[in-house]
Amino acid sequence: MNASEFRRRGKEMVDYMANYMEGIEGRQVYPDVEPGYLRPLIPAAAPQEPDTFEDIINDVEKIIMPGAASPACTELETVMMDWLGKMLELPKAFLNEKAGEGGGVIQGSASEATLVALLAARTKVIHRLQAASPELTQAAIMEKLVAYSSDQAHSSVERAGLIGGVKLKAIPSDGNFAMRASALQEALERDKAAGLIPFFMVATLGTTTCCSFDNLLEVGPICNKEDIWLHVDAAYAGSAFICPEFRHLLNGVEFADSFNFNPHKWLLVNFDCSAMWVKKRTDLTGAFRLDPTYLKHSHQDSGLITDYRHWQIPLGRRFRSLKMWFVFRMYGVKGLQAYIRKHVQLSHEFESLVRQDPRFEICVEVILGLVCFRLKGSNKVNEALLQRINSAKKIHLVPCHLRDKFVLRFAICSRTVESAHVQRAWEHIKELAADVLRAERE
Amino acid sequence: MNASEFRRRGKEMVDYMANYMEGIEGRQVYPDVEPGYLRPLIPAAAPQEPDTFEDIINDVEKIIMPGAASPACTELETVMMDWLGKMLELPKAFLNEKAGEGGGVIQGSASEATLVALLAARTKVIHRLQAASPELTQAAIMEKLVAYSSDQAHSSVERAGLIGGVKLKAIPSDGNFAMRASALQEALERDKAAGLIPFFMVATLGTTTCCSFDNLLEVGPICNKEDIWLHVDAAYAGSAFICPEFRHLLNGVEFADSFNFNPHKWLLVNFDCSAMWVKKRTDLTGAFRLDPTYLKHSHQDSGLITDYRHWQIPLGRRFRSLKMWFVFRMYGVKGLQAYIRKHVQLSHEFESLVRQDPRFEICVEVILGLVCFRLKGSNKVNEALLQRINSAKKIHLVPCHLRDKFVLRFAICSRTVESAHVQRAWEHIKELAADVLRAERE
Repeated sequence: MNASEFRRRGKEMVDYMANYMEGIEGRQVYPDVEPGYLRPLIPAAAPQEPDTFEDIINDVEKIIMPGAASPACTELETVMMDWLGKMLELPKAFLNEKAGEGGGVIQGSASEATLVALLAARTKVIHRLQAASPELTQAAIMEKLVAYSSDQAHSSVERAGLIGGVKLKAIPSDGNFAMRASALQEALERDKAAGLIPFFMVATLGTTTCCSFDNLLEVGPICNKEDIWLHVDAAYAGSAFICPEFRHLLNGVEFADSFNFNPHKWLLVNFDCSAMWVKKRTDLTGAFRLDPTYLKHSHQDSGLITDYRHWQIPLGRRFRSLKMWFVFRMYGVKGLQAYIRKHVQLSHEFESLVRQDPRFEICVEVILGLVCFRLKGSNKVNEALLQRINSAKKIHLVPCHLRDKFVLRFAICSRTVESAHVQRAWEHIKELAADVLRAERE
Repeated sequence: MNASEFRRRGKEMVDYMANYMEGIEGRQVYPDVEPGYLRPLIPAAAPQEPDTFEDIINDVEKIIMPGAASPACTELETVMMDWLGKMLELPKAFLNEKAGEGGGVIQGSASEATLVALLAARTKVIHRLQAASPELTQAAIMEKLVAYSSDQAHSSVERAGLIGGVKLKAIPSDGNFAMRASALQEALERDKAAGLIPFFMVATLGTTTCCSFDNLLEVGPICNKEDIWLHVDAAYAGSAFICPEFRHLLNGVEFADSFNFNPHKWLLVNFDCSAMWVKKRTDLTGAFRLDPTYLKHSHQDSGLITDYRHWQIPLGRRFRSLKMWFVFRMYGVKGLQAYIRKHVQLSHEFESLVRQDPRFEICVEVILGLVCFRLKGSNKVNEALLQRINSAKKIHLVPCHLRDKFVLRFAICSRTVESAHVQRAWEHIKELAADVLRAERE
């Protein structure tokens, strides 16, 4: 939607809201619909081609408004998570439709998804061990629990361990910054020999530092065999898996117990919207479920409805699935795929500019929209370059450390980015690099 | 703001956003402002009288836009939390201004605030005990930790205990559903004698079930003496404390380590916005702080800026303080006070209608906007009445249990509620009650 259509549609929405407020006394305080009313009213999958804005707004009036905030908020979320799961070709076990055991939920951030998965895994292993040895206390078990991630995982994984009160160990990644079977096996054997209980693993697809991918096909079967909950965090990269040519990066997700990525990062859905799926809903609800009278309702135990408050840390919820519904329909799957492809193509364009300049090096294989690069030479010279780039305030780069190297990260992430921006940014970087190298020689 | 002004202002905002998008290439990617730029630009306290919408929008352009999303998002939040703290006459120790040790943060929900406080308290007690006895493991300590709340506390407190992996015990409340010193003392003595370590207390001001108030003036000093972190949860009632005549209900907050209420519940700020204050910021940041390279910044260790990611469960944040700024200025403190007073007055109006009808009884003293009432008689007849009321869908009531009694809750909570609605609701309830009583006699 361009700015001029946004002006028109935005103003129509303002009137829609004002009309709602003016007519609110004529509305019923409680909807007439029955649990499950929504799914039959909308398609089973996202459209390939864009829908018109009129069609979407008409559906809001026809499908959402009769379901009020509740149950429409919950039911649209369940169906949108199925739509998105199908776009990614997630294994059917993660979907909610046809009364499977899995399903999706919108969390606020990947950090929360990781924490929720860790807490569910913790409850599950405690119950399992106590079932076998009823004399074991929770504290005695927790003292021995150990969670894992690669040494490239996001800091939020370590934080989830802190909050959950369990040990977290970092598995050394390989030369491509990926977690592999051998390093994991070694850690598991050492820890089990020391009497610890491995119970939780976070594998990352598309690390924050350099967009590397843990080897799910190696790590997944080990987790399954060892009864370790496998959580797959694809916060950034997950959006790309809607393109068939990138879907192979998700291979191995069939071994996972939970999977998460952030449509708010790269799928045009406004912050916040973090999509999380589990294979067994009851694993999550088992960790959090409490039912006081003031939260009871007549469909409590029917199995017909989803109580998302048992799936997350907070109890209250916002109607975030509306954002997904609008975006998926306004772009269509093909529009979203084109958006991802354009970004990946632009990052390769930047990569090839860097490779043509012998003063620079590419530090990690470029797979999606992130290019890790640096001046050949010392960390000091690269720190000086970063400082000049960010002081000039024409572009903004966030650096990282890869092993002992200070590395610059060029991320393609704006909705409106074009080749001209990439070219201009590279010219700018080259000029500043020349200044830095000149200053170094003097 | 009425619907017709909303139409005008809403459309102006749509144009403002479209203009921003159209002009985005001309903007700098990184702001020129220095840490602390914002506070001197806005008043030290909320205005008593409403500001005009023009003034507010002009300030957005003048004060917020130059500070972009960061640091404006953080700095406005810190100042708004000070504004709100002053409106409540919170002790100065909770405020951020003048470089005190305290400060406020916006959480998503009261559940998260309770959890964050519990985790901070857990870290603090573990550090304290390990400093005295370095041989103690975290697990050995956690096994003995015990948290408390009254038996009327919200279920999210029990949930925080589950997530935090610590015991939670319910203190029996008194005849007015309040926690008192004697019951607390008894529990503490029993638990300490059993070798447990009391470390955390949630006192509730305005319980969910019946808006009862724990006795902070009794409970607070005990917590301080016993080194128990006192968290005060006033999720609903907190908004009322901006009125001098209700401020006494907050007396004793000076004993608390953390305090929380939800402006999204009763202070006209849209969901979500849960306001939390602590006396020592470092207690929170100590529980969560991790600093990877990609989250480092040049002001990291200056002490000049606030990194709210260390204050909460998720890392990402939304710009929720803008909502507070708009609401506080558009209503002014007097307008917000008038709003609270009107609701309390309407709940007393409903109360007096109930009291005039000998078939009904009021179950708990009406203090704010909630009236707990029932037909004199069996739970069964009250359940039947509730069922009729909610099936008719003209009003909607959520019930509760008070000890062995099934109780109906009439809550004044709509922005546009008037006396006429209350009168109409009561007539409706009386009619349905007559039907229920007639059916019972037959």
